[in-house]
Order: sequence, then C-alpha cells, then structure tokens
Amino acid sequence: MSDPDSTRRGELELIRRLRDLLGRPGATNAPGPGAGPPPIAFGDDMSVLEPGPPPLLWTVDMLMDGVDFDSAVHPWRTIGRKAMAVNLSDCAAMAAVPIGALCAVSLCNALSMEDALELARGAHECGLRFGCPIVGGDTNSWDAPTAISISVAARCEPGRQPVGRHGARPGDRVWLTGPVGGSLLGRHLTFEPRIAAALEINRHLAPHAMIDISDGLALDLARILDASGCGAVLDEPALDAAIHPDAHRRAQQDGRSPRDHALHDGEDFELIVVLPPDAPRAACERVPLLPLGTITAERGLWLTLSAGGREAIAPRGWEHFR
Amino acid sequence: MSDPDSTRRGELELIRRLRDLLGRPGATNAPGPGAGPPPIAFGDDMSVLEPGPPPLLWTVDMLMDGVDFDSAVHPWRTIGRKAMAVNLSDCAAMAAVPIGALCAVSLCNALSMEDALELARGAHECGLRFGCPIVGGDTNSWDAPTAISISVAARCEPGRQPVGRHGARPGDRVWLTGPVGGSLLGRHLTFEPRIAAALEINRHLAPHAMIDISDGLALDLARILDASGCGAVLDEPALDAAIHPDAHRRAQQDGRSPRDHALHDGEDFELIVVLPPDAPRAACERVPLLPLGTITAERGLWLTLSAGGREAIAPRGWEHFR
Repeated sequence: MSDPDSTRRGELELIRRLRDLLGRPGATNAPGPGAGPPPIAFGDDMSVLEPGPPPLLWTVDMLMDGVDFDSAVHPWRTIGRKAMAVNLSDCAAMAAVPIGALCAVSLCNALSMEDALELARGAHECGLRFGCPIVGGDTNSWDAPTAISISVAARCEPGRQPVGRHGARPGDRVWLTGPVGGSLLGRHLTFEPRIAAALEINRHLAPHAMIDISDGLALDLARILDASGCGAVLDEPALDAAIHPDAHRRAQQDGRSPRDHALHDGEDFELIVVLPPDAPRAACERVPLLPLGTITAERGLWLTLSAGGREAIAPRGWEHFR
Repeated sequence: MSDPDSTRRGELELIRRLRDLLGRPGATNAPGPGAGPPPIAFGDDMSVLEPGPPPLLWTVDMLMDGVDFDSAVHPWRTIGRKAMAVNLSDCAAMAAVPIGALCAVSLCNALSMEDALELARGAHECGLRFGCPIVGGDTNSWDAPTAISISVAARCEPGRQPVGRHGARPGDRVWLTGPVGGSLLGRHLTFEPRIAAALEINRHLAPHAMIDISDGLALDLARILDASGCGAVLDEPALDAAIHPDAHRRAQQDGRSPRDHALHDGEDFELIVVLPPDAPRAACERVPLLPLGTITAERGLWLTLSAGGREAIAPRGWEHFR
C-alpha cells in the first residue's frame, strides 16, 4: 500500500515537500548556521545569499519553449528579454537592486548560432537597462526544446531590508502597481519589471509584504496570506478598476469574464503590495498604486460585492507539475 | 550571401561570440563599472559577484537528461548529486568555499513526486557535505526531458584571490589532482569535488592557474593555455602514470588507447593545476598532485616521447552545440 500522499501532484505540493526536505522549521533561507535577519522564508521571491547589511539576495527562473514562450511565434531576442525580466521582477518583489546575472541554456540543436546570440542579446540588453549585466553562464545543447535559466543577484538599498511575503497584518491595505489580466495578449513578453516602484515603496511607505504576480493575482495574493497567516477581502469596484483592457479583450475571445482573467491569469508581473493602514493615499497614488482591498484576521480570500454580501475567490492560477 | 562565419557551429565558437557580445575588451566579469581585481575573465569556471575582499563568486551548470545523465539508468538521487557536484567542482577550480545554492528544474511530466524529491535530496545532501545548502529555486514541468540548473555562490578564503585560467607562465609545472580517463564507467556521477585540495594548494603553493576537467584533459588544459598565451609539453611517462584504471578498462571495450581516453574523455572533474617551477615537490605530492609536464612559451600542446621527439596533442573533448 503506497502512501496516498505520495501520489499527490502539483507544484504547490512539490514546493511544500521541498520546504520540508530542504528547510528547517523556523529557518530562514540564509546560508550557514546562525544567520540572523532578514527573515525571508524558503520559497519567497528571492533567497538570502548574505545577510549584509545591506542584504545580498539571489533568485533563479527557468523558462521553457512551449511553456513560457513559443519559439515558433516569438523572436529569440524577445524570449531572452523575458527570461531576464522575470528575474528582475523577483528583485522588484523584494525591493532589491539587481547587480548581475548568470545565464544557463540548453539550446535545441535546431537553433542557429544567430538564434542563440539573439537569445543572449535580448537577455543582456534587458539586464543592462537595470544595471544587471550577464557576467557568466553555461552553454549546452540537446535534441529537445530550448530551456533557459537565469540567476540574478541583487542588493537591498543601504539601511533597507528585503520585503518578504509574511508581514501582512489585519487592517493593512492591499495595492497593485498596475492593472492585471490578459497578459497572454503580449504583456507576458514585454512587461516592465517594477523595480523603480518597489524601491520607492520600500523607501517611503514601510511595506509589510510584496510579491510579483507570476501565477495570477488570486494565487499570488494567497501566497502572501498563507505566509502571513491572515486573509483578505477585495473590494468589487476597486477590483473592477484594476482590470487591464487586455483582460476585456481576452474575455471577448474566450467567454471567461474580464474579472476572472484579472484574478487568475498569470504573468502580469505587477506587484501586490501590502501597506499599513496609515500609508498616505496621496503617496500611494503617486507611485502609482491601485487600491484593491484589506487584510483580515479571518483566513481566506473574499470579494465584497457592491450589491451586498461577499463571495469566495479561489486561489487558482498557473501551476506546474500537475 | 550569408556571412560564412555565421554558419560556424560549436560551443567554443558560441562562447567566443558570447564573449564578444557580453564582455568588453579587457573587462573582468565583475558586475558594475570600475570593478577592480580579481581579474577573472568572462568564461572562467566562476564569475565574480563582488570583488570583496574576500571575493564572492558564483557559477551555474545545467544538466540535461540524455546528455549529462540517463534517467532510464541512473537513480534520481545520483543525478541530483551530480548536478550539485559539477558546481562544487567549479568552486574547486577557483579555490573558493561554497556557501549556498539555487536549484531550478524543468521536470519531465512523467516524473513522480518521489523522483522529484529524490533529485532534490541528492543535490541537497551533496551540497550540505560541502557547507552548501540549497536555499531557493524554481520548479517547473513540461513534456520534455528533465533539465536541472544549479547555481552556487562561493567565497574565497580570507586574504586569498580566486585562481583563474590566465596566469600560467613558461617554465611553470602542470599537475593533476588525480588520474584521468574512463569516467563514463561511473566516476562522472560519483566524483569528489576537489575543494579541499584546491584550498590547500591556494594556501601553500601559490598556483598560477587552475581548471577542472569537465570536457577533457587536453581541451581544458588548452583553455588554460589560450587564456595564458602560452603552450605546454606533457611528459610521456608522467602522462601514462596519470591514466586512470577506468581508461584502461574503457580501452579494452572500445579499442581506443588508454592514453586517448585520458586525454580526451570528459567529466573527470580532477583539477589541472599550474604551479611555479619552485613549488616544493614534496608539498605537491602531499596534496597529492601528479606531475604532468611543463608550460612553454611556444604555443600548442605537445607530448614529449620517451623514444625522442614529440607529437602534437589535439585539443579535442566534449563540445556542445556542434
């Protein structure tokens, strides 16, 4: 009789079990014994490489042909850009300044030399715009689709700590750095990592938690709520005001509602920002941030309806290894 | 008419063109403008993340099913071990102490949860033995073979600089940390990263250059020679004494000579160490190091024959993207 648990699938379950395997209870992901703050948990957007001050962080993201991009459609330079930008978005999520990148590739043997160089060019150009050159890597090839893995290191600004996922408190307000939904129409390739906004927020607004939306607003917000041990209510008019025009266009194509796209589409790469209740609204709007709702002591994620009452929002989104 | 150069293939050509694209003439791979020593060139075993002191380095290696391992034959735990160990071998090549790792995977959808965890376990256990826990990563899955990309950060010991590939000088002696050839019989999965030997060498023997043998003795030594602008002659009895018993076994299987296996087989992960001529032989033998030959001002790689005369050694070895 096999352990029924061993047949459970899904990336979330895999990450949970990896956390059990690799992390120790209460341990941060800082290397070495006795590392002190910052208290960044295993599985956050970046890991602590050195506690500093200021802390040095790093992250890795792997993109695969047919999953994260489609080389039959997307130019290799654009693909390279995305491979770098998703890492820079992780830097934004932690309010860290990127300083350099490593790039490992397993190139499909069908690629031309020029394709391979375009891939590198796209990644490097995007990195340079954010002060993050590619400083090394590993080149491989095989008879399978291309995979590209970029690691980025980043430093917090002097006197600042990284913003994790665990600090949301009941009464805090939930904000977004921009409208969401429908990114598949193109923004998943061309999005701007929100590093400037994140640094501004960390300098002036004392954020309690941040995450970038890679797998969907609902799923990524749920990650903040899980890490913080609380819940949230989203405000219906605020949510509707944060729906990207692309979500409306996608809704016309596929019949799902614009709100469904806004809540559950992945790869928007806007930041979900949790601020204390007294964060000045004018300062928030200057970033700019869009209001979305409120953190609650009661667990769960809810939408308060303008017509009265509330409905549960499922923490659905993109999940690997299903 | 296309540029004939654009049709050239091969990993070495790709790396050369990436260096043109990503590096600047004379630049080190330290991030940011004006970074000073250590002068580690783009394409060395590790890249400089922060110049220190002591310098902080990082590296990445990607392993792919069917290329670097065969999941139909090798246990996932062993595969995970190798994915970590090849990075630790890069640390050895620079004489740096590993401090932490990130692990990104694109798992074949056919993998079980237990397979995925075994992969992580193998990598993590191997890292922990060298003080290098996995502190974060990225989990993905797809309908293609599994790829695993591990990044490792490492710190030089206080007062020490990393050992690059560029410092070999005519008259220097070439040494090996162990016998080579025939690693495919199993050592490519079970090799011991030579970190302890590398630190000992960097503390006491003032090494001019080091590299780990990932693609073959001849090819990896040629990389030192290219970076240093010199050549080398290997001594026939010394080379024959450095042939691993596995090279003899492989020779019996495939008819290639044991010496050919020793010179051109990849994945031995022993270090090639270039020491000044006055390095005390007793100290070298204590590491232990095996003597191999001498650095020359004349370019090229040669074998001096016991019967008199010399023959050229081709810098052949494993090369991706051919």
